[in-house]
Amino acid sequence: MNALYLVIVCGLLSIVYGVWAIRSVMASDAGNARMQEISGYVREGAQAYLRRQYTTIGAVGVVIFVVVGFLLGWPVAAGFAIGAILSAVAGFIGMNVSVRANVRTAAAAMQSLAGGLDIAFKAGAVTGMLVAGLALLGVAVYYAILTGPMGHAPTDRVVVDALVALGFGASLISIFARLGGGIFTKGADVGGDLVGKVEAGIPEDDPRNPATIADNVGDNVGDCAGMAADLFETYAVTVVATMVLAAIFFAGQDVVASTMLYPLAICGICIVTSIIGTFFVRLGANNSIMGALYKGLWATTLFSALGVGAATSLTVGWGPIGAVNAAGLQVTGWNLFFCGILGLAVTGAIVWITEYYTGIGFRPVRSISQASVTGHGTNVIQGLAVSLESTALPTIVIVIGIVATYQLAGLFGTAIAVTTMLGLAGMIVALDAFGPVTDNAGGIAEMAGLPKEVRHTTDALDAVGNTTKAVTKGYAIGSAGLGALVLFAAYNSDLQYFVTRANEAGATEYQYFKGVTPDFALTNPYVVVGLLLGGLIPFLFGGIAMTAVGRAAGSIVEEVRAQFRAKPGIMKGTEKPDYGRAVDILTKAAIREMIVPSLLPVLAPIVIFFGVEAIAGRSQAFSAVGAMLLGVIVTGLFVAISMTSGGGAWDNAKKSFEDGFVDASGQKHFKGSDAHKASVTGDTVGDPYKDTAGPAVNPAIKITNIVALLLLAVLAHGG
Amino acid sequence: MNALYLVIVCGLLSIVYGVWAIRSVMASDAGNARMQEISGYVREGAQAYLRRQYTTIGAVGVVIFVVVGFLLGWPVAAGFAIGAILSAVAGFIGMNVSVRANVRTAAAAMQSLAGGLDIAFKAGAVTGMLVAGLALLGVAVYYAILTGPMGHAPTDRVVVDALVALGFGASLISIFARLGGGIFTKGADVGGDLVGKVEAGIPEDDPRNPATIADNVGDNVGDCAGMAADLFETYAVTVVATMVLAAIFFAGQDVVASTMLYPLAICGICIVTSIIGTFFVRLGANNSIMGALYKGLWATTLFSALGVGAATSLTVGWGPIGAVNAAGLQVTGWNLFFCGILGLAVTGAIVWITEYYTGIGFRPVRSISQASVTGHGTNVIQGLAVSLESTALPTIVIVIGIVATYQLAGLFGTAIAVTTMLGLAGMIVALDAFGPVTDNAGGIAEMAGLPKEVRHTTDALDAVGNTTKAVTKGYAIGSAGLGALVLFAAYNSDLQYFVTRANEAGATEYQYFKGVTPDFALTNPYVVVGLLLGGLIPFLFGGIAMTAVGRAAGSIVEEVRAQFRAKPGIMKGTEKPDYGRAVDILTKAAIREMIVPSLLPVLAPIVIFFGVEAIAGRSQAFSAVGAMLLGVIVTGLFVAISMTSGGGAWDNAKKSFEDGFVDASGQKHFKGSDAHKASVTGDTVGDPYKDTAGPAVNPAIKITNIVALLLLAVLAHGG
Repeated sequence: MNALYLVIVCGLLSIVYGVWAIRSVMASDAGNARMQEISGYVREGAQAYLRRQYTTIGAVGVVIFVVVGFLLGWPVAAGFAIGAILSAVAGFIGMNVSVRANVRTAAAAMQSLAGGLDIAFKAGAVTGMLVAGLALLGVAVYYAILTGPMGHAPTDRVVVDALVALGFGASLISIFARLGGGIFTKGADVGGDLVGKVEAGIPEDDPRNPATIADNVGDNVGDCAGMAADLFETYAVTVVATMVLAAIFFAGQDVVASTMLYPLAICGICIVTSIIGTFFVRLGANNSIMGALYKGLWATTLFSALGVGAATSLTVGWGPIGAVNAAGLQVTGWNLFFCGILGLAVTGAIVWITEYYTGIGFRPVRSISQASVTGHGTNVIQGLAVSLESTALPTIVIVIGIVATYQLAGLFGTAIAVTTMLGLAGMIVALDAFGPVTDNAGGIAEMAGLPKEVRHTTDALDAVGNTTKAVTKGYAIGSAGLGALVLFAAYNSDLQYFVTRANEAGATEYQYFKGVTPDFALTNPYVVVGLLLGGLIPFLFGGIAMTAVGRAAGSIVEEVRAQFRAKPGIMKGTEKPDYGRAVDILTKAAIREMIVPSLLPVLAPIVIFFGVEAIAGRSQAFSAVGAMLLGVIVTGLFVAISMTSGGGAWDNAKKSFEDGFVDASGQKHFKGSDAHKASVTGDTVGDPYKDTAGPAVNPAIKITNIVALLLLAVLAHGG
Repeated sequence: MNALYLVIVCGLLSIVYGVWAIRSVMASDAGNARMQEISGYVREGAQAYLRRQYTTIGAVGVVIFVVVGFLLGWPVAAGFAIGAILSAVAGFIGMNVSVRANVRTAAAAMQSLAGGLDIAFKAGAVTGMLVAGLALLGVAVYYAILTGPMGHAPTDRVVVDALVALGFGASLISIFARLGGGIFTKGADVGGDLVGKVEAGIPEDDPRNPATIADNVGDNVGDCAGMAADLFETYAVTVVATMVLAAIFFAGQDVVASTMLYPLAICGICIVTSIIGTFFVRLGANNSIMGALYKGLWATTLFSALGVGAATSLTVGWGPIGAVNAAGLQVTGWNLFFCGILGLAVTGAIVWITEYYTGIGFRPVRSISQASVTGHGTNVIQGLAVSLESTALPTIVIVIGIVATYQLAGLFGTAIAVTTMLGLAGMIVALDAFGPVTDNAGGIAEMAGLPKEVRHTTDALDAVGNTTKAVTKGYAIGSAGLGALVLFAAYNSDLQYFVTRANEAGATEYQYFKGVTPDFALTNPYVVVGLLLGGLIPFLFGGIAMTAVGRAAGSIVEEVRAQFRAKPGIMKGTEKPDYGRAVDILTKAAIREMIVPSLLPVLAPIVIFFGVEAIAGRSQAFSAVGAMLLGVIVTGLFVAISMTSGGGAWDNAKKSFEDGFVDASGQKHFKGSDAHKASVTGDTVGDPYKDTAGPAVNPAIKITNIVALLLLAVLAHGG
């Protein structure tokens, strides 16, 4: 129990860091009046959007809270509320820091690159540490309360259900925030570019474009708040699933408490190492921004390796722990430690692969730039080719991770590896949340008419943001891929638990599961049906998300055209566009469009369970839903990686023309050339790919899994 | 045995029909000298390409023949040769008819639409009937020889292995022909359009474009020969897998011979109904070409329903047949008959859904046309959205098919449904092979400077060809989806057979399988590994294919630019371009590019088997390979449907501008408008999607499965 308090202290440290970093950001120069005015518009828009988004989610959340309360009891409903509220808080604070740091980054960039980097990274780190810290605190504190004052044993059903519900709360925020934010940001970006850059011929971030503020708002609500909710969920769900697995695998043994504590301890220590890592982000003599960020990441990774050792030593110890599977595979602390190290190695490999596929200077992006020379069509073809191909190496890394951790310590080993991967979330989110701040800083510099050199500095920061954003998405989906096994194992173990209990002589509990014999073999056609229907979710979901972005962008195009017609002075610079209307239109569009696709992964397991039950009976229904959980990850992994890597590659292919791209025949193509125009088309296509549909697949995968777990709990409670 | 002779007679009927249709096509007017000259270029190019392709495949094939012969014996190797040679023959004859019918269709279109339709459809029907007929003859005759003169029992291993090898032979041709042909045709199309339409500003099929003959050659080698090989394979593999299942399910029972004959009988009768159906293709009073084709398809479907009844009556009878699974599910002839009817219903549903997603006048294509109004980027975004969404309904239809047939008659019921689906192949291929003929006819009309009305007639025929091509692809991948269960069942049943035999007391055979306990449960991490690695194949394969098209197109762009530079008279019409060089460059590019991706699905099961065996032992290796077979279909189904439907939708969205597209605000956009230009980008992207990568996924799925089956045979033979 002492270790649990230590974990809680680590979680609190993240809040201390957050307060310190916020004060440090706020203390810096906020720029001139014009800059502050523009930043004010962005802040207002972002707050208005988030208020509206949270109000809508809140309405859904209250209904679910009451339903969960009635079905599973109020301690479980409280878990749901904790997950949802803490996720919302992390996103809300993070975004509020982001919209204040943007103008300060622009102001600092007037002095030096190092200054701009310092503020932008600190702002990102606030979001990062709060995501990891609040997620850990939510799980650890509620676990402490449930097993302490409330007097439950660690393996009591109510504890397991409450933790799963906490994950569900986080998932709900995550899917809405990812989709809503994604639709907002890319609706603004695509729509604004089409009508501004293409039709009116004015540059990006030109203050004459009425959609320009909405574009900057979008960076914050999508890439900051949306991404924070996503990683919060991944973090919470992974820790919870690992704890649930420990509770099931080691049920009735002495080690159950310490193995349940082990994932919490790893995450706690990794928060400390992430905080230490932030101080390693320093611009070197070569002025490489990416190099500075990587110094922080690698420092965190190295310290975390030691930290996992400390966590092992503190909780489970290095010696024998127990058997982790039916075959009686005995594991020691050393085995689990190596699984943790493998988690770190997988993270490193995925970061490297993602950078290869999305970074300027490597073959994939160069091939897209080259294909732009022959036109729009070949640019898109090559981009799609890269996006499809980019799935191969991450999949192989994940497969190696599964095999190696399983050989070392069974499924629990895989779970520990994913937990350790997620332990780095604080640092990884910091790298990502840095992106919208620098993007906004560039926008503010442009709109406020700051000197060209300032824009040059913010552009340099922004280019790095593109890669770090892709890296984070690769990391999130990679951990989801590895975590899928863990979630499926949790589903299967839970199901077995209920079935065994229900069939005990004289059992009165869990009678819904009496006589149920799930068959997860691939030879069972209902397993194939589950795989296919699960596999459909990411495709259908992605299609709906892409359409939504197109529709939102279309509404912005019309609004901007209308403003240009009504106020001819806008283009001359004598009239001010109405930025608020564009923000308002997008807010309404994003909220409206996010509802249906969000419900798809929530309802799918429920519909399929009762559908198959009606046709083929209860056992097959459980088989089909189980298979669905794997089906959604099997296609989701590929869809998400291909979309996020492909989109990042398209974006940087466009950027490669800014300094002039030298094609295969030695000709140099600049901004404004036909090749550059073709690359802009690819970037436009890549936008909703990488920032709306792709990243939203991640919460869709996990929400399907967590709903299935809750469904089991509800059926068990009812029966 | 008498029924088997009837089946062979049905197969021979297809050849009789082919001879009659070829004579009928050849007897019609071959147009003027200029038309014949152009057609001659196309013919020469197509023959040169096919010669080279078959030479390359032949070299690979001889090696495999020898290896198979040494590993599994010469009767099995002979099966491989039969499959490969007959598939090549069907493609070769079909294409040779196609390159002669093109000019005759153009000539007939000078008189009337009905005349053009008649010749083009008859030419397509030759390919269609030969594909179905030769595939059926190959299987039926070799089965007759093996079980007759050679004296084997129907369930002898050598019979099963020889039939599987026949499927493998067909698969090998299929993957090479689909990929090689696909790369050729789209390399020519994309490259020719880029340099002709976009750079030089000359229309499609303009004789001044040196790539224009290559483009017309491509239609024949890709859409005719490539597609024929694909369907030949699907047909052969499905019939073989169904026979293998019957051999295993009913082993040792009296009904085994009649149930093995049943799929052959269904296919035999369906050839007759397909031939009858061709005579229903008649232009009605409304001049609807699609309507005329549908009349033929629906007539075939209706007669086939009766035909399946006749086949049931002739072979298995209507009464009880036996148990089809471990649970002892008893089936009757009626059950199997209804499974056949379900197969026809699935075909109808998929045809309807594909037309909805790719036809002009429905929401999906209209939404892409509308998105073109706001630019290249939104066109591509909406096209991708449609492509992702288009996977939903076919998947649901396939799931319903799986569930319904399984409830009726277990996995054997599913196999009978797929067999019946494939029974319609003659008619479906006829609809598809009609496409390149009309496409070529249009090209010849343009190049020969025929009057505008002729081009109008051929364009009308061509537009329909786009939809029928998409329909065929939907049908091919749909049957593969349903057939995946059958192939996996064949793998599993074969494996169980060997394992059981190996573990019998005192057994000396199949000792490689002694003590093997495959575990196909989703709870086994090696099953997840297999699903992920299998799932990767379609993505990686698709990515490589897209890159190959881009590269082939790039080489054409350079060649055409070089010709324009070297011979300035080409553009003025005073010098003749060198068509042959463009054809030659593409031929080399296509052959070179097809090798590596073709080997991917061939080698993947072998590499994974021995890789997993080294790490986790033999049982897990069999589990992982089994899971891989399902993994490749779970993602392959979605990748293939999304690519083929999406590509078809993009193509027709472009076509919608030809008669003027009225957008949401009531404005009309014509050919040459900015919206039309944006739609051309989408079409360019859709080209390799729908004609190279998407359709090639289909053979990739099946070759993975068939290689796994052969691998079992080899291991069994060796052990």
